[in-house]
Amino acid sequence: MEGENKRENMLQKITGQITPLDKEAMEKARLRVDDLTKPPGSLGRLEDLSIQLAGIKGDFFPTGSRKRVVIMAADHGVTEEGISAFPSEVTGQMLSNFAAGGAGINVLSNLGDVEIKVVDVGVATEYEESTVKQAKIRPGTANFCEEPAMSREEAVDAVMTGVEIARESAQDGVQVLATGEMGIGNTTASSAVMAAFTGYEASLVVGRGSGLDDEKLLHKQSIVEKALKLHKPNADDPVEVVSKVGGLEIAGLAGLIIGAAYNRIPVVIDGFISTAAALLAVNMASGVKDYLIPSHQSMESGHALLLDYLNLQPYLNMNMRLGEGTGAVLAMQLVEAAARITLEMATFSDAGISKEADINEPQN
Amino acid sequence: MEGENKRENMLQKITGQITPLDKEAMEKARLRVDDLTKPPGSLGRLEDLSIQLAGIKGDFFPTGSRKRVVIMAADHGVTEEGISAFPSEVTGQMLSNFAAGGAGINVLSNLGDVEIKVVDVGVATEYEESTVKQAKIRPGTANFCEEPAMSREEAVDAVMTGVEIARESAQDGVQVLATGEMGIGNTTASSAVMAAFTGYEASLVVGRGSGLDDEKLLHKQSIVEKALKLHKPNADDPVEVVSKVGGLEIAGLAGLIIGAAYNRIPVVIDGFISTAAALLAVNMASGVKDYLIPSHQSMESGHALLLDYLNLQPYLNMNMRLGEGTGAVLAMQLVEAAARITLEMATFSDAGISKEADINEPQN
Repeated sequence: MEGENKRENMLQKITGQITPLDKEAMEKARLRVDDLTKPPGSLGRLEDLSIQLAGIKGDFFPTGSRKRVVIMAADHGVTEEGISAFPSEVTGQMLSNFAAGGAGINVLSNLGDVEIKVVDVGVATEYEESTVKQAKIRPGTANFCEEPAMSREEAVDAVMTGVEIARESAQDGVQVLATGEMGIGNTTASSAVMAAFTGYEASLVVGRGSGLDDEKLLHKQSIVEKALKLHKPNADDPVEVVSKVGGLEIAGLAGLIIGAAYNRIPVVIDGFISTAAALLAVNMASGVKDYLIPSHQSMESGHALLLDYLNLQPYLNMNMRLGEGTGAVLAMQLVEAAARITLEMATFSDAGISKEADINEPQN
Repeated sequence: MEGENKRENMLQKITGQITPLDKEAMEKARLRVDDLTKPPGSLGRLEDLSIQLAGIKGDFFPTGSRKRVVIMAADHGVTEEGISAFPSEVTGQMLSNFAAGGAGINVLSNLGDVEIKVVDVGVATEYEESTVKQAKIRPGTANFCEEPAMSREEAVDAVMTGVEIARESAQDGVQVLATGEMGIGNTTASSAVMAAFTGYEASLVVGRGSGLDDEKLLHKQSIVEKALKLHKPNADDPVEVVSKVGGLEIAGLAGLIIGAAYNRIPVVIDGFISTAAALLAVNMASGVKDYLIPSHQSMESGHALLLDYLNLQPYLNMNMRLGEGTGAVLAMQLVEAAARITLEMATFSDAGISKEADINEPQN
């Protein structure tokens, strides 16, 4: 127990050391962006992103940055309740598919020149392990309809695994991170985590996941309600929330996000499960909020509400709901675009172009 | 006149020969997409795009396709009325900026590996011509508050220029086209074109362009109202609409879109001006609709309405309003992504993964 208290203290120390964005670098970026050869503000959210990136980096954000998506994988005891269209074995099977290069995330990461790191924090079945980082905390969670998904210590371990992966990524020279996940049953756990923090009804936070029909959707809602009623997780204690009704990959991704912020690395957030992890991370350390880059709005019905709750506006409107980090990886090109416009566009003075201000000056 | 009637007849012949999408290729793509290792439908609009592309191509759409953005440039006589935050000279100055590689479109095209082709269909001032295709029909339109923007013959010539550029692009092996434009004053002309076809009030279709204040916005609305009242363009005669209240680059882009469809090339549509050109093209040949790929929703206030009118859902939510083709070029990565998922992801049978159907089968 003492060792575990130490881990929790270490996590608290890290969350307490997340620094705000660099205001001076942001102002420098803003001035530069306003002098680029375009009407002021006309690149819209690319401009905002460019300024956010400068605030994270403490300088103009580099072009050609090294990018990595971290896929946290784990299984869920709650699948016993029949809340997913796919059996638990698919988690491990998909890890083998990642290793073979045949999954959606492989294809989209190749396109975006993004490295993939798969981390097993709790897969329950066997799979092709060659390309997977082994960090299994337990082989899947317990069924949180009957008992806590995991112990408090296991939850802290999962979060710290994510923090550690972020640190390693920083050491590897990774400059942009993205969140991904694989875990049959994890929309159910994400819905429960979302309900615990937001207080929203199960009917608002539960969606069809990988493809439930109406009847099974209602069943999934009842399962989330049952778990919340059983555990009454305390929203002021995020470790309690994730240990009682969360998942190992959700905790791991929250740690990745915290670690990204701690290392001043922007982190692109994928869909519903990743955003639930972001919600958990923000509850552990509100300062991580400024390091988040939203990507797409998932079809999973709770996602729009959750993005809104976190005041994040998605960039992509693709109706995707695959997970794995696919939406986040697609949006990584926008990070590159934001970096490039700042550093590669000409300024008005460079290009000798009439500026709006020139014609709006008062006539004498 | 006879020569010009011939040109208009040729245009009608082309618009009459646009073919519908290849249903068989679409069905083949749909079957493939449904067998990929993901829950059915979970790649959302990437799947729909993949199927649309197959319908256009008549087969699976190739990866690594050659991509080109065509920037039609022209000036507008209506700038005399003070409807833009920038002077007309900026059109030519920006063409020099394109040639020097310093504009937003240069940076984003480099990122997306997209070729840029700039076409002068009506620039009124001088600029660095080295990289610009000379196809000037007249040096800017007339002020359409006082007289038609151009003659019917000039409008047809501008459209046919776009058709020709699409044909040349097809010959060059270009497989995806995007629309771009440069023309101080062209949001005013686009608003007038939109109002003429949709019947919407000026207050709905007129926006701030490159940056008008409230007072100038009202003035711009009154200018559009005045032009529509003067010319009463007949919405059933698209050539009349664009000749009376349009612009040379709007006509040119409509021709590019028609030519793209004629040559079975998908065409990614940029912001408000490009979408006004798409509206014109659809009115000339409704079959082009299936070849359109929307990109982003511009901040220009009429754009959301116009996309809705055309039943196009934007993929990107960037609040951009720069034009030049910048939003379209950003969205071209989605075309590549759609092509790649279809051809590069593993199928369930390849990967040996449990399929939803396997567990949903009725038990005996």
